[in-house]
Amino acid sequence: MTKPVSNEARMRGRQFYFNPGPTNIPDSVLAAMHRPAEDFLTDAFKAVLRRTHANLKHALGTRQHLLLFGANGHSAWEAALANLFSRGDKILMLESGYFSYHWTKMATELGLEVETLWADWRKGVPAAAVTERLAEDKAHAIKGVLVVHNETATGLVHPLAELRAAIDAAKHPALFLVDTISSFASMEFRFDELGVDVAVGGSQKGLMMITGLSFTAISQRAMEIAQSGGGLRRSFFDWRAMMTVEPQRFPGTSPVHLIHGLDEALRLLLEEGMDNVVARHGRFADAARAAIRHWGDGAASDARISWDSVEGEIDGIQILCTDPDRLSDSVTAVFVPDGHDANAMRQIALDRYNLSLGQGLGPLAGRAFRIGHLGDMNEPMMLGALATIELALKASGIPHKSGGVDAAIAALSA
Amino acid sequence: MTKPVSNEARMRGRQFYFNPGPTNIPDSVLAAMHRPAEDFLTDAFKAVLRRTHANLKHALGTRQHLLLFGANGHSAWEAALANLFSRGDKILMLESGYFSYHWTKMATELGLEVETLWADWRKGVPAAAVTERLAEDKAHAIKGVLVVHNETATGLVHPLAELRAAIDAAKHPALFLVDTISSFASMEFRFDELGVDVAVGGSQKGLMMITGLSFTAISQRAMEIAQSGGGLRRSFFDWRAMMTVEPQRFPGTSPVHLIHGLDEALRLLLEEGMDNVVARHGRFADAARAAIRHWGDGAASDARISWDSVEGEIDGIQILCTDPDRLSDSVTAVFVPDGHDANAMRQIALDRYNLSLGQGLGPLAGRAFRIGHLGDMNEPMMLGALATIELALKASGIPHKSGGVDAAIAALSA
Amino acid sequence: MTKPVSNEARMRGRQFYFNPGPTNIPDSVLAAMHRPAEDFLTDAFKAVLRRTHANLKHALGTRQHLLLFGANGHSAWEAALANLFSRGDKILMLESGYFSYHWTKMATELGLEVETLWADWRKGVPAAAVTERLAEDKAHAIKGVLVVHNETATGLVHPLAELRAAIDAAKHPALFLVDTISSFASMEFRFDELGVDVAVGGSQKGLMMITGLSFTAISQRAMEIAQSGGGLRRSFFDWRAMMTVEPQRFPGTSPVHLIHGLDEALRLLLEEGMDNVVARHGRFADAARAAIRHWGDGAASDARISWDSVEGEIDGIQILCTDPDRLSDSVTAVFVPDGHDANAMRQIALDRYNLSLGQGLGPLAGRAFRIGHLGDMNEPMMLGALATIELALKASGIPHKSGGVDAAIAALSA
Amino acid sequence: MTKPVSNEARMRGRQFYFNPGPTNIPDSVLAAMHRPAEDFLTDAFKAVLRRTHANLKHALGTRQHLLLFGANGHSAWEAALANLFSRGDKILMLESGYFSYHWTKMATELGLEVETLWADWRKGVPAAAVTERLAEDKAHAIKGVLVVHNETATGLVHPLAELRAAIDAAKHPALFLVDTISSFASMEFRFDELGVDVAVGGSQKGLMMITGLSFTAISQRAMEIAQSGGGLRRSFFDWRAMMTVEPQRFPGTSPVHLIHGLDEALRLLLEEGMDNVVARHGRFADAARAAIRHWGDGAASDARISWDSVEGEIDGIQILCTDPDRLSDSVTAVFVPDGHDANAMRQIALDRYNLSLGQGLGPLAGRAFRIGHLGDMNEPMMLGALATIELALKASGIPHKSGGVDAAIAALSA
Repeated sequence: MTKPVSNEARMRGRQFYFNPGPTNIPDSVLAAMHRPAEDFLTDAFKAVLRRTHANLKHALGTRQHLLLFGANGHSAWEAALANLFSRGDKILMLESGYFSYHWTKMATELGLEVETLWADWRKGVPAAAVTERLAEDKAHAIKGVLVVHNETATGLVHPLAELRAAIDAAKHPALFLVDTISSFASMEFRFDELGVDVAVGGSQKGLMMITGLSFTAISQRAMEIAQSGGGLRRSFFDWRAMMTVEPQRFPGTSPVHLIHGLDEALRLLLEEGMDNVVARHGRFADAARAAIRHWGDGAASDARISWDSVEGEIDGIQILCTDPDRLSDSVTAVFVPDGHDANAMRQIALDRYNLSLGQGLGPLAGRAFRIGHLGDMNEPMMLGALATIELALKASGIPHKSGGVDAAIAALSA
Repeated sequence: MTKPVSNEARMRGRQFYFNPGPTNIPDSVLAAMHRPAEDFLTDAFKAVLRRTHANLKHALGTRQHLLLFGANGHSAWEAALANLFSRGDKILMLESGYFSYHWTKMATELGLEVETLWADWRKGVPAAAVTERLAEDKAHAIKGVLVVHNETATGLVHPLAELRAAIDAAKHPALFLVDTISSFASMEFRFDELGVDVAVGGSQKGLMMITGLSFTAISQRAMEIAQSGGGLRRSFFDWRAMMTVEPQRFPGTSPVHLIHGLDEALRLLLEEGMDNVVARHGRFADAARAAIRHWGDGAASDARISWDSVEGEIDGIQILCTDPDRLSDSVTAVFVPDGHDANAMRQIALDRYNLSLGQGLGPLAGRAFRIGHLGDMNEPMMLGALATIELALKASGIPHKSGGVDAAIAALSA
Repeated sequence: MTKPVSNEARMRGRQFYFNPGPTNIPDSVLAAMHRPAEDFLTDAFKAVLRRTHANLKHALGTRQHLLLFGANGHSAWEAALANLFSRGDKILMLESGYFSYHWTKMATELGLEVETLWADWRKGVPAAAVTERLAEDKAHAIKGVLVVHNETATGLVHPLAELRAAIDAAKHPALFLVDTISSFASMEFRFDELGVDVAVGGSQKGLMMITGLSFTAISQRAMEIAQSGGGLRRSFFDWRAMMTVEPQRFPGTSPVHLIHGLDEALRLLLEEGMDNVVARHGRFADAARAAIRHWGDGAASDARISWDSVEGEIDGIQILCTDPDRLSDSVTAVFVPDGHDANAMRQIALDRYNLSLGQGLGPLAGRAFRIGHLGDMNEPMMLGALATIELALKASGIPHKSGGVDAAIAALSA
Repeated sequence: MTKPVSNEARMRGRQFYFNPGPTNIPDSVLAAMHRPAEDFLTDAFKAVLRRTHANLKHALGTRQHLLLFGANGHSAWEAALANLFSRGDKILMLESGYFSYHWTKMATELGLEVETLWADWRKGVPAAAVTERLAEDKAHAIKGVLVVHNETATGLVHPLAELRAAIDAAKHPALFLVDTISSFASMEFRFDELGVDVAVGGSQKGLMMITGLSFTAISQRAMEIAQSGGGLRRSFFDWRAMMTVEPQRFPGTSPVHLIHGLDEALRLLLEEGMDNVVARHGRFADAARAAIRHWGDGAASDARISWDSVEGEIDGIQILCTDPDRLSDSVTAVFVPDGHDANAMRQIALDRYNLSLGQGLGPLAGRAFRIGHLGDMNEPMMLGALATIELALKASGIPHKSGGVDAAIAALSA
């Protein structure tokens, strides 16, 4: 007879980690940070920093400006706001969900005026609404249009090329700021081609690194605004001070170990090729969606989501995002049917099977779970996670049609 | 369009490693060996060695003797032969497959006379045949009965309690030597209860360690033989010299780092509890067998295997071992149908999906593949491997009934 | 004959790292960060964060408030300013050298008015000058008194208890803010006993961690100011938002790996005992000073240092700090005689002997080098560094009296 | 007041490890072994094994044969004896100390007849004595001449070129077997040029690896003897079976992780260049000897050492080896004066200062200590160790002349 055993003891094998961030870290990236202290003023370290810069710019598709921050993505959010906008400036935020809400909150705290284009979290903001609003703004009071490219809370993607075109259609000079935190290195993103002014990203998602670094790609136009006296009062986040040395300064001691980790992560990504990275994420997202649709067996609903609530009925497992052109390739949020508890299922997946899934955020708490299928991932990992989700659905009594993994295998075999 | 990419570059995520040995190594075991050089004569290191001994004896279910060797399982094989038998002694080997053949070869090279009880590799030797043979040996010329508990090449288990009873039934004094290399810490094994005289094991299977250590549990009776002048001429492998210090000496420098790794691996196993470890392996083996039987859709055959050849037809995917009471919980060998190449399938699994499977050995080369489901493993890993095997079966055109993973999920949900 | 070899290839053995920060990182701290990604919302991680908080508060000698920041010490500098002072507030900075200059610069950029109590970098500000200046400020326009406890650029310590008494003597309500970045966990510091209002520290000095974390201890009085509407507009750095969860929130994703590293570093420090840590730093600093004084053979000078220049002659090796009561136990800055290049000597130490020393900052560039003798360090390391400095002095032709290491050995034997 | 603290807790900084083996392991070598399990039958691993072979042959200066063993140097000792000599063969062993004694013991246990050329451990065997003894052996009964190149117990080197010439002078066909365990990759050794037949080495000395691997370089003539039926009965150690695959087979599972570590260690050595490696060891040994002679202040004695005893008086610190042409560059054994306890001094060095020194072996227990100055080492490490020995001499009251480190610095500055 087997004895009872603590969860921790039972947990043989590596945890299957399918949260949308932080994400799985390659062994070689961890190894690159397992190193002694180092003087960051040496030529040897400067060469590493220059290579990291060059490789990240290549991965981002930009020949304009790049700055790294020794802190997480929220720091790059604040730096972008602080360097480009002045007290009382109006900016336009496209609602996508949890993270557009928090970026808005930050801007407000810093003294900016934020106008939100409201949207159902399952659909996002239509590009036409952007053109319409900007066209009304004859005085060009709106200084920036801000969007979270991939909303991590919902698995919904706003189409950047369409949005750029929408701004252009209104002939409006607003800066175009994009949060690429959970899209970069998972979905296609080419800074220069897209005509973005600021892209903010973090180390702990597609870049497969630990949390602690973030970056900002900056257009020449945006940099000129920051350099020529624009922006809020700032010191730690001041782009100007960071630009005084090539490729950059850090305020205070440089985050040497984190730079070494990022350097290795970029080596892996560029070796694979960014197009291949993107294609791989597409395949795995397709597999996940095939399994989810199989489990749901055609379930769909008109329920809408806002910051406060989910309105309407959810009568079967279904993908949260209802616009087929806006499905995320890095994270998929999944509704469980009304009357069932997504968090109870997640806890079973974690406690019994060592599978970590993302929780529903804000109004989605308990209503949805999230599968993070981005970063350092391969077919057996993806299929193992989906099979284990099916195990956990069974164990928690959530109605579903068996055979989701077969659908995923079929998708990957196509 | 995606660019072609080298296999190595494509290999995101950790390799799924389902070879029957070496096996997956827990991170904490690797970390335990990532340490500076250390003087092995200090009290601090001696305490680690004593703890490792005590824990390994506990895991083996013995209060008799234990010795570690700073080399792989073949070294422990040779030590057992050299310490117990004299030039020209006759020993009886139960054929199980590839590894019983090689242990036989070693004994012959050392000057022993080996008589083999031949068997079909799919069935192994009946216990009754042991009684029968020993009963004939009135003069007790046979000094030892040797068996590979779990034949790694075939996934067939010889039943140790039955064999012990079979020796006893013949009232024969032969020593009972067991190779537990691919069974220990995966399937139940209790040295003292089973009345085994020598058990040989290695570090790189159920013990979840790197290759380089092996062990031998030794009964009081066997130790007395070794101590009282029995055995071949020997030095490096001499148990007597190793027994002069408590808990043991090593010939030459002690393998400090390897001992630290083993110490941590044993901590993990004992924390989980050996009964739980065994039960876990049983569950995962059941899941693997459910998938294989589903793929084979009832295929079975009378084909027999010997050292030279497979005789008979294989017309569908099937488990190699045909005795339901002798199925291995650590490795399953799987026939592919005639006309299909198991190695081509394995190569696809490795190159496209980063899944490493075991190859068919000896007469099974190209005819079978092996799934090592032992060591540091959990449900998502097991299910991910099975799903990916199904992907690879499809990609290589090997006939199978889709849905093997569903069968495995059902087995794990039972 | 030996062939020429690149510096990198020649560099056998670990680099001797005697920079004042980042500092040597214990193996177990690096190992604690060599771990997979982890969901920071689990109870398991929250327990680690709570333990880290509790241990750091214990080490700081405070029962008041503590916050960690996922960025370096400059971020904690800015947070302290932003949460406590309002636009146009006047603060009083005690000049110590390079870092008091930069904290001043930051405060100015954020819109505060900074008044500096100027000082010779070799002596620092007399406590009496603080009382004097505060006593003049009848209107209590000065909202804060700021000091860098240990000036990393010079190896000069400002006496905190005296400064506290000096503020009290003026009966002035100004907040007392202390930068402990290069003093904490090297020299005695007890937050509550000293009556400090804010202490700012970083991970990469006495805490023996990689760069990327910082902390702020906060008095109840300071926290009330921050909570009750005081301070500049802020978001990323807002203490209020961080205090909404016990023990704290991080803005955005928590720096999981860095917290694990800090947790292990604190375990090491508390195991040793903070008093022992301080005593150890004192012994090693004494040894370093004994060697330097021996090399200088009585050299001393009245040369003064300000932000712009060194005024006066340096005719022999000597310790930069001339006040025997203000000598640093974590870093010693050393003048080389006029006409000699400290950086050339440092380069020889690095290139030939793999010893990394700190450079002279600001007006001290080329005039002085710095020995960082803080963090994870023992007698052989300290003596090896001093012996190698003597090797490098000889190799670079800098006049010195041989035998510095003997003086250091004598100091350690005392 | 500081609290008492356990030794372990007090031990900040890396242990200074100056044992003659195992030796300090470079971080990159440890990192190379911190890797997942791997199928040793893949082309990728075979390429690593081939490169390791090629690099080790290059480092050894041989184009003849090489075999690696997945066990320590004693296993390679036994393999050499078992493959080349037959039961009852006579071999001639040159006494050097502890390790020549143990190799002799092994040969005797395996059934060989060993004749020893006795010597004072402080001087070793004169080359002329070899010629003399072989010249007497008209019947060529002596099949092999065996010598430990560098006796690890005493720091005495036997001159291989002289010994080769001595054998040749006697026109004797005996094989020439050399134990290079503590000399290889520290002192010059060129297998083919020296006309050696077998060189045995281990991973944990000059190769800077963990214990667990050993190697044997084998001349064409020796290999032919092994291949053509010579040697003892053997299986695990049979060179013939290992030679059946290019570059070699291992009996049983290949020691994958250890090979990866060795591969990295060889990369480091060849990058530095073997001539530079040898020169570096020479410089550090000179520095150590300069310090010891300074401490001894001219002390010398005629005391002799044999297996049983030290005969004569030791009235001051002195180097054990008295032949200036036979001083070891990898280890120096140091006598302490009569009436003083070398082990008490070693314990103080370890407990107070975290410096690990080698103990006196056999008759030298308590009379001598050993400084291992081989492997991954640089000037600051060497000087730090010597300075700390002087600290420990003072602390344990062993008479010495202060200033040993100055002498070492002078030696390194020469």
